[in-house]
Amino acid sequence: MIVHDYQTHEDQAAAIFESWGMPEERARASARVLAWADLHGIESHGIAMLVEYDERRATRPINFAPTPHIVQETPVSALLDGDGGLGHATATQAIDVAIAKAKSNGIGAVSVRNSGHFGALGFFTTRAADGGLIAMAATSVFGIRVPPTGGSQARLGTDPWSFAAPSADGRHFVLDMATTTVASGKVRNKIVEGQEMPPGWGFDTSGRPTLDPSVVMNGGFLSPLGGGAETAGYKGYGLAAMVNILASCLSGSTLITDPMHSRQPKGLDVGHFFLVIDPNLFRPLDAFSADVQRFSDDLRATPAVDAAQPVQVAGDPERAIKAKRSAEGIPIGPGLYQRLKDIASESGARWLFEDQMSRAG
Amino acid sequence: MIVHDYQTHEDQAAAIFESWGMPEERARASARVLAWADLHGIESHGIAMLVEYDERRATRPINFAPTPHIVQETPVSALLDGDGGLGHATATQAIDVAIAKAKSNGIGAVSVRNSGHFGALGFFTTRAADGGLIAMAATSVFGIRVPPTGGSQARLGTDPWSFAAPSADGRHFVLDMATTTVASGKVRNKIVEGQEMPPGWGFDTSGRPTLDPSVVMNGGFLSPLGGGAETAGYKGYGLAAMVNILASCLSGSTLITDPMHSRQPKGLDVGHFFLVIDPNLFRPLDAFSADVQRFSDDLRATPAVDAAQPVQVAGDPERAIKAKRSAEGIPIGPGLYQRLKDIASESGARWLFEDQMSRAG
Repeated sequence: MIVHDYQTHEDQAAAIFESWGMPEERARASARVLAWADLHGIESHGIAMLVEYDERRATRPINFAPTPHIVQETPVSALLDGDGGLGHATATQAIDVAIAKAKSNGIGAVSVRNSGHFGALGFFTTRAADGGLIAMAATSVFGIRVPPTGGSQARLGTDPWSFAAPSADGRHFVLDMATTTVASGKVRNKIVEGQEMPPGWGFDTSGRPTLDPSVVMNGGFLSPLGGGAETAGYKGYGLAAMVNILASCLSGSTLITDPMHSRQPKGLDVGHFFLVIDPNLFRPLDAFSADVQRFSDDLRATPAVDAAQPVQVAGDPERAIKAKRSAEGIPIGPGLYQRLKDIASESGARWLFEDQMSRAG
Repeated sequence: MIVHDYQTHEDQAAAIFESWGMPEERARASARVLAWADLHGIESHGIAMLVEYDERRATRPINFAPTPHIVQETPVSALLDGDGGLGHATATQAIDVAIAKAKSNGIGAVSVRNSGHFGALGFFTTRAADGGLIAMAATSVFGIRVPPTGGSQARLGTDPWSFAAPSADGRHFVLDMATTTVASGKVRNKIVEGQEMPPGWGFDTSGRPTLDPSVVMNGGFLSPLGGGAETAGYKGYGLAAMVNILASCLSGSTLITDPMHSRQPKGLDVGHFFLVIDPNLFRPLDAFSADVQRFSDDLRATPAVDAAQPVQVAGDPERAIKAKRSAEGIPIGPGLYQRLKDIASESGARWLFEDQMSRAG
């Protein structure tokens, strides 16, 4: 493992984004989202994504200097056009519009079209929870990886969903989940690091279980949350469809089931959905966030099957990693390190990682 | 199996509700929700619930003649107090308030406190989809059945979630799911009919898998969607917590993790959450619902693993059963039939089922 402090980590990502033609402010916004994910241990959505973005920009035009703009709005809603850029800065703008509308009018719903990959959803819903607000987020994705229950071909993606709510003690409830058993990023990282997957994560091209992440990433399938029909995989499939309806159908973005034909999108044409609710519509924030804390603490107090592994609440594992990495730095594996070095070299980005004291582990 | 037409089914449920002291209009609203569930094949939330309500009213006061009232509201929200009644009529009122606010102002969010069991969530979200609107629904529940991931005691319930969206062809997308692998109603029906459960639905008191539904219902646990931690059961656990935050923390209803102590509720004190969104905020309804149809049809067109079992979309299985039962009547098992007959006899309700032509199967 090679370790850098948070700032160097973010700066290196920003340097690569800038080398692709992204204006400084936008590059910084994108880098902040990716570095946030790594800081919280969500490596599948951290700077490892730069490898995938680099591959995508070779096959699909990405507007690295877009001008996102609001197409239509009401006191409680906005439709935002991402102008063909990557999604991080656009989605940050979108959640901030939703937050502002929720603070003024109780609720803010923002639909985004013509955007791109935006990183970890938890970045955006946490931003609302930090402001004392409830948030939901969903996005369409580019990769088609998951068959509908009973289907023999992939039609859906990792189709993630996030929900966050403020807790009085600051340990906000932050659920951020792919509606698959695992996200493709976790499978991809297994390939980069040369490891097998645990059982149950994926299927080969004919739908049989496999432990080989490269089989899943090369024609095989991810399973929807729940797995097969008898263990209610149709619920994970249903949640994936919900995510696509909110992110794609509502914004008018490309349907994942129809990626190339009807719309003839020029770019990635990813859609997002954000909903922010002010709890004061129903109860004072203090009372609501005290109940979120009480509920979370009650769950944490459940006697554990294994005393060494106390029960956690959504957001806890990421907070623990954030505390550790804030103090000790953010590690990346040697495979990813080399890929990023190659990418930076090819695009002429400044290479900052070697300026930092690093150690092998 | 004993079969009756829809109207007799609803009338029988209404007669039992009225025999418990429920005013005629409210009894009809409750019966309509239960009969809707049976018509759509959701027997776990049909008139089988009368057996559970009958047990509950012996242990907890239920206000059978409540006066639900709006405590506070804005153009896009309302907090409704259910006055200690069962939830069916109260929730119908709540979704109708949410629908009206969404039609006027784009979004309607209604939080309900001091309510009771309200039946199948799909009844309410379908009501919005029928009006060209998107809907989400969640409710807290009375039964504590599910351990948080890594916990050795139950702290959560079946904690259901529903999402519906209108499709141009009228075959609306209607996801209605317990965040457990299965709902407790399905386990309960296995007991009533004397059948074993499929593997993976539940655990015994020490957390080991069991096929015996009575073990699950007597001290054992239901599993969260996803099962154990390695197959991402923490996602189902996270969704269950989301449902409780929206339904209980937001409304100020009793927390499932603290059922008796802090609030000292007099009745069931169940909380609900409804959110309705007008898609016209973002795109014309015609364009949105056409995309929902296109997306759904694309999924249905996926080549099936088993050609005899075509791929379906959330709402399809229930629609198929509705069509069949509208024509042929609604069956109930002999165990449930006898229980209902006993309940009707004890409370002096009119017994309508025998007036109907019935057949044994």
